[in-house]
Amino acid sequence: MSSDLLNALIDGLRVLPSVGPRSARRMALHLLQSNRKGGLNLAEVLSQSMTQIKNCQSCRNFTEQALCSICNDSSRDETQLCVVENPADVDSLELTSGYTGRYFVLMGRLSPLDGLGPYELGMDKLFELIRSQSVKELIIATGTSVEGDATAQYISDQLVNDDIAITRLASGIPSGGDLEALSGNTLKTAFANRQPF
Amino acid sequence: MSSDLLNALIDGLRVLPSVGPRSARRMALHLLQSNRKGGLNLAEVLSQSMTQIKNCQSCRNFTEQALCSICNDSSRDETQLCVVENPADVDSLELTSGYTGRYFVLMGRLSPLDGLGPYELGMDKLFELIRSQSVKELIIATGTSVEGDATAQYISDQLVNDDIAITRLASGIPSGGDLEALSGNTLKTAFANRQPF
Ligand SMILES: [Zn+2]
Ligand SMILES: [Zn+2]
Repeated sequence: MSSDLLNALIDGLRVLPSVGPRSARRMALHLLQSNRKGGLNLAEVLSQSMTQIKNCQSCRNFTEQALCSICNDSSRDETQLCVVENPADVDSLELTSGYTGRYFVLMGRLSPLDGLGPYELGMDKLFELIRSQSVKELIIATGTSVEGDATAQYISDQLVNDDIAITRLASGIPSGGDLEALSGNTLKTAFANRQPF
Repeated sequence: MSSDLLNALIDGLRVLPSVGPRSARRMALHLLQSNRKGGLNLAEVLSQSMTQIKNCQSCRNFTEQALCSICNDSSRDETQLCVVENPADVDSLELTSGYTGRYFVLMGRLSPLDGLGPYELGMDKLFELIRSQSVKELIIATGTSVEGDATAQYISDQLVNDDIAITRLASGIPSGGDLEALSGNTLKTAFANRQPF
């Protein structure tokens, strides 16, 4: 490119997943030619998001507040807690399941090779929350990959002496799948048919 | 999403071409979870690019300087001028053609329905440049779409009384294609085989 700054922009766009050199160039030129205002707005929200969005002190979901909007909602049932891998899973369940309890977001799943153990997934906070909030039902909604299964098993094992019902999303989740890729109906069925763990 | 700022980020990412709600969410979560530093760097270069990148005063290509690096390079042959539709076409030709002359970037092609006439494409500057710089060969490298052909024809018609050789990239460009989508070899052949217009 004829401009160092433009080259830096094209390089910078490559941090986005699935964006190679060709699409990065197309994105940069599109913004410069047709939407500088949109590009400036993106720069602003991106900068704010990267610095201001933290993890909710209760559920670990992303929020710019101390507590996310769900944890802050006193009408939600504190005796039900649903454990998911990712923030996107909370969205999917909110859209489809009719669930009115709380969530806990692991921000991943057990994967020792990637350095993701119980501590990295905030499980100390999870068990503390379960015990301090008198949770009666823990719904484990991790994916059905090998790691998702291992994560569910690990959580269940740690709570074997606690007086708590543990269920897991059941029929309807295709093997090896992440929650994010499911249709709303599949997810709704799986949620309604959850089974004791 | 549990966060207004995160929703704003997802919306903001939609200004990028071919980015729908699903991939915007995936991008936002990826940056928050795995690459905040890269996200902050992108915000910075994006902001700088949108405000500092202008059109080169001579060739109209994007640059943050008064003149782009090609127009600033006194070793380039001023008697040859190559007219292209887009900045990406300059890159492609620089990579493949061995061309050592100058460029003029129209930033589009004639398209009256989109409000793109000769003035919007900077053609007054193009003809002024040709006459003031004693250009001997004008290479028209617009695409072979209907609009690309019309643009080439219009430029040629305006120069009918000027003492200048006009050529156009010839064999090897598939009909209806843009330069950007061609392989390096196709473009190289078309450039080498350029014909009198
Ligand atoms: Zn929360
Ligand atoms: Zn220039």
